[in-house]
Amino acid sequence: MSNLIKIHLRLLHDDDIALGPGKADLLEAIAREGSLSAAAKALNISYRRVWSMVESMNNGFRTPLVSTAHGGTKGGGATVTELGQTVLAQYRSLQSDVQALALSHFTRLEPLMKPPEDTPET
Amino acid sequence: MSNLIKIHLRLLHDDDIALGPGKADLLEAIAREGSLSAAAKALNISYRRVWSMVESMNNGFRTPLVSTAHGGTKGGGATVTELGQTVLAQYRSLQSDVQALALSHFTRLEPLMKPPEDTPET
Repeated sequence: MSNLIKIHLRLLHDDDIALGPGKADLLEAIAREGSLSAAAKALNISYRRVWSMVESMNNGFRTPLVSTAHGGTKGGGATVTELGQTVLAQYRSLQSDVQALALSHFTRLEPLMKPPEDTPET
Repeated sequence: MSNLIKIHLRLLHDDDIALGPGKADLLEAIAREGSLSAAAKALNISYRRVWSMVESMNNGFRTPLVSTAHGGTKGGGATVTELGQTVLAQYRSLQSDVQALALSHFTRLEPLMKPPEDTPET
């Protein structure tokens, strides 16, 4: 039943989203792929969007979450900094605790909902 | 600091959103305004969109959350059913419990974030 409840957690900084579900996924993709362009490809979003998401994240925290190396034909690689890894881990732990709490409350709501994929009674 | 964290809780039914922040606000507006058109006006959204949101909500639960009275020149009024009131109250309570938990965890993340409205050091 866990697919019946969906929670989006966002950390705001001056009305900008410093971290949310998409940016957390992006941090993971950058750590895995090693560059912004490869992360963009893996997530099927534009390089321009990745760049803007990285800028928001880096701007929301005391020091950057993503470090980019300029130069080279393809613009160099990118890594998730130590702060980036810490923030990501804390965001994921917050997410899973909130999800667990929500699911425990959901037991009151679920019986009121229509069962999924109702088929017409025959 | 509570404006630094934003949480969206959604209840899904067959990939449709049966209840989320916008629909909860709509239930409140319908209860307050007494008709779909007045609720649409109060929330500054189209009547068409209100109608589609009401359909999703009514379709996600065992019995409708909103009851509409047809007829009359303006299409009649709308009320939030007893189930609608129960579901709304439980959603709000879930929201506030989740918010409280998230805030208690946020104390670990907040020191890592840049203070809001950073002004350049002079």
